[in-house]
Amino acid sequence: MTFSNIMDSNSYQGDSSQAGVGPLIAARARMLGPASRLFYDRPVHLVRGQGSHLFDADGASFLDAYNNVASVGHGHPHVVDAVSQQLATLNTHTRYLHGGILDYSERLLASMPAEIDQVMYACTGSEANDLALRVAEMYTGASGVIVTADAYHGNTTAVTAISPALGAATTLGKNVRTVPAPDSYRIPRAELAARFAADVAGAVDDLRGAGFGVSALVADTIFSSDGIYPDPSVLKPAVDVVRAAGGVFIADEVQPGFARTGESMWGFTRHHVIPELITMGKPMGNGLPVAAMAARSDVLKPFAVGVPYFNTFAGNAVSMAAAAAVLDVIEGERLLLNAASVGAALRRDLAHVAAGHPRIGDIRGAGLYIGVEVVADPDTKTPDRAGARWLVNALRERRVLLSVCGAAGHVLKIRPPLVFSRSDVDWFCTEFAAVLGDF
Amino acid sequence: MTFSNIMDSNSYQGDSSQAGVGPLIAARARMLGPASRLFYDRPVHLVRGQGSHLFDADGASFLDAYNNVASVGHGHPHVVDAVSQQLATLNTHTRYLHGGILDYSERLLASMPAEIDQVMYACTGSEANDLALRVAEMYTGASGVIVTADAYHGNTTAVTAISPALGAATTLGKNVRTVPAPDSYRIPRAELAARFAADVAGAVDDLRGAGFGVSALVADTIFSSDGIYPDPSVLKPAVDVVRAAGGVFIADEVQPGFARTGESMWGFTRHHVIPELITMGKPMGNGLPVAAMAARSDVLKPFAVGVPYFNTFAGNAVSMAAAAAVLDVIEGERLLLNAASVGAALRRDLAHVAAGHPRIGDIRGAGLYIGVEVVADPDTKTPDRAGARWLVNALRERRVLLSVCGAAGHVLKIRPPLVFSRSDVDWFCTEFAAVLGDF
Repeated sequence: MTFSNIMDSNSYQGDSSQAGVGPLIAARARMLGPASRLFYDRPVHLVRGQGSHLFDADGASFLDAYNNVASVGHGHPHVVDAVSQQLATLNTHTRYLHGGILDYSERLLASMPAEIDQVMYACTGSEANDLALRVAEMYTGASGVIVTADAYHGNTTAVTAISPALGAATTLGKNVRTVPAPDSYRIPRAELAARFAADVAGAVDDLRGAGFGVSALVADTIFSSDGIYPDPSVLKPAVDVVRAAGGVFIADEVQPGFARTGESMWGFTRHHVIPELITMGKPMGNGLPVAAMAARSDVLKPFAVGVPYFNTFAGNAVSMAAAAAVLDVIEGERLLLNAASVGAALRRDLAHVAAGHPRIGDIRGAGLYIGVEVVADPDTKTPDRAGARWLVNALRERRVLLSVCGAAGHVLKIRPPLVFSRSDVDWFCTEFAAVLGDF
Repeated sequence: MTFSNIMDSNSYQGDSSQAGVGPLIAARARMLGPASRLFYDRPVHLVRGQGSHLFDADGASFLDAYNNVASVGHGHPHVVDAVSQQLATLNTHTRYLHGGILDYSERLLASMPAEIDQVMYACTGSEANDLALRVAEMYTGASGVIVTADAYHGNTTAVTAISPALGAATTLGKNVRTVPAPDSYRIPRAELAARFAADVAGAVDDLRGAGFGVSALVADTIFSSDGIYPDPSVLKPAVDVVRAAGGVFIADEVQPGFARTGESMWGFTRHHVIPELITMGKPMGNGLPVAAMAARSDVLKPFAVGVPYFNTFAGNAVSMAAAAAVLDVIEGERLLLNAASVGAALRRDLAHVAAGHPRIGDIRGAGLYIGVEVVADPDTKTPDRAGARWLVNALRERRVLLSVCGAAGHVLKIRPPLVFSRSDVDWFCTEFAAVLGDF
């Protein structure tokens, strides 16, 4: 199993310093079953959050360097107020008219290229990706899908079938081909884009040979589950290959979207491509289950006309109030700019701290999506899964929360709320320096 | 297309009495595309809800006889407060420990038979059913699924494949067989259960012959999309047949669950069966996207151990606060009892109003889930789709909201919030009598 973008632990066997959480862990195992996996060797019991900080039951504060759902900050009062007020007023579905969904759609589509002119709502990124696959298939008349080798696109049956990161327990669809992610640490930069396009071309040939045709290339434009590869040159040539074969590009913006990368609201903008379909989720409602698929109307049409798709909770008045409040905060607090400047500061300071630590092989990212590659040897660049895991748990002991990604689970994934501040950077780097001292 | 449990209208062409909503409808068509379908010939623009009443932009009040999501009432202050407070405090995912999910799971499982001992969370009923299909398949080692002929179980790719109500635009899975719903209006009651079991046995033989084996019978225990058939005798013999073939029973409680039927918290209890898997959604969070799959732990185990399933928003602290508040209200306001008594009163009064109207062929239901069969002729029992549609639109003009179900879209679906009162019954019957006068 390569599902390494979780740092799970079901192996907790009791620990006197965790006396308070033992019963919680036991209750989870009993009632939630083996599917319920916790972060960290010593799980964290959280009771409160504010901005980029979380607090446990003892009042100890944690630095949140991981949660991209509470993207405008934990407990943001503007979001809380918007949701609370709308919930007290009206919360019903989209078979009635309501202004909220229209006002929001206007703003969302205005943040995208003019070609992207329609939007359908869902509750989760998984649902949005599941929908996008069906829309692409009806538009192209083909079923072949290309994803990166450690992609993760969600948890429904159909989306699991395009999520190789889930590992051996789930089987990729017969109509799915994988290509290596554009690993900017191991492949010379000058070769990255051509190699990625060539791999996609190989997958195209294979899908055509097998009779599936080419429906879509689906990619998270920061390749987060694969290991975070921010190079903005790689996608366009590959997308050209897919389009020449009749397929479309589905940009999975669940991770890079909503200002995360610091350069633009959407990750695909960095790559200078305009997708046919754009899916989004996690940060969209700052924790409320809100997701969407934006589309070119001509691409959407065959599905939308033919299939009576309805999603009960999607686009309801409260979801739209939450989503609108998130846009308000991104704009009002200039979080795109903050992601760019604080992200750059964090990468710079991390590089400073890591100097002289050869097992920190690479520090890369865009905005507040940062990967730190942990290797056994900087010459061979051998992934060090155990080392990454040790660092994550050591940081947790110092109350700094993050996790890992990459095929070998060897890349530290730093992805804090977008309100992360310069003082948070200092806090992070102080603790990172301390754990590197013991590494 | 037989997707008749919606009363959609994309045909609105402008109407001087709808001057205010014309721009909203145009904006929907432009930005949400053809998938966006509205209820009623003259769509309703809602701005506020309270209890079982909804209000439009002009302040006119509507009687809500349809929304089973806002099941404890629109804008219920206890739910609003619980969500607002939790949202301001903490809202993060289940890889950290949190008491909310454990307290709620304890209460939820306590409402079920002891055999049902574990629960996994999702955001929508579709996700819960999608998950249940995978769990059943891993447990049974078979893939064949049996559903009723006009079942609707959700909108993901996998669940669409077991939702014949979606009609010709979506293809049922090769591994899916349908059986006629137990139509208590057209089949003599004494034959209902045996005939349903025999149909299921036929589907079992067919699935085995085709090499799929039998994974699951999936049924909504009130057969809502099929036309609302409340007879409690039908499921047990059919479930016995499925179990003898190695399959499991998945009770889709999205519609009948959470006290809706007035007899018990769960629809399956009425049928005296204990499912292996139980899915739930819509009313669970009174409008917040909260869903779950409860399970026998031995059935869940192969999936839960093998597949690293994770659902970002599912079971988060706010979802659980909403769900717990819903249980509080169901218990505190005795809504199970209310559903039973008010539902019985509504059926009785409807029967009184409908007497002498031969095109009202049958009034049936359990608790506050009531179907009114509209027929062209009471002797032939020919479904009258146009008549049902006329009644729904006529009631909408009198500001009473409901919709239809059934293969021919000929059954009025009355499914109000569980706080529906005796005076709401009077309101409903007064308006129903008025429209019948013109019918």
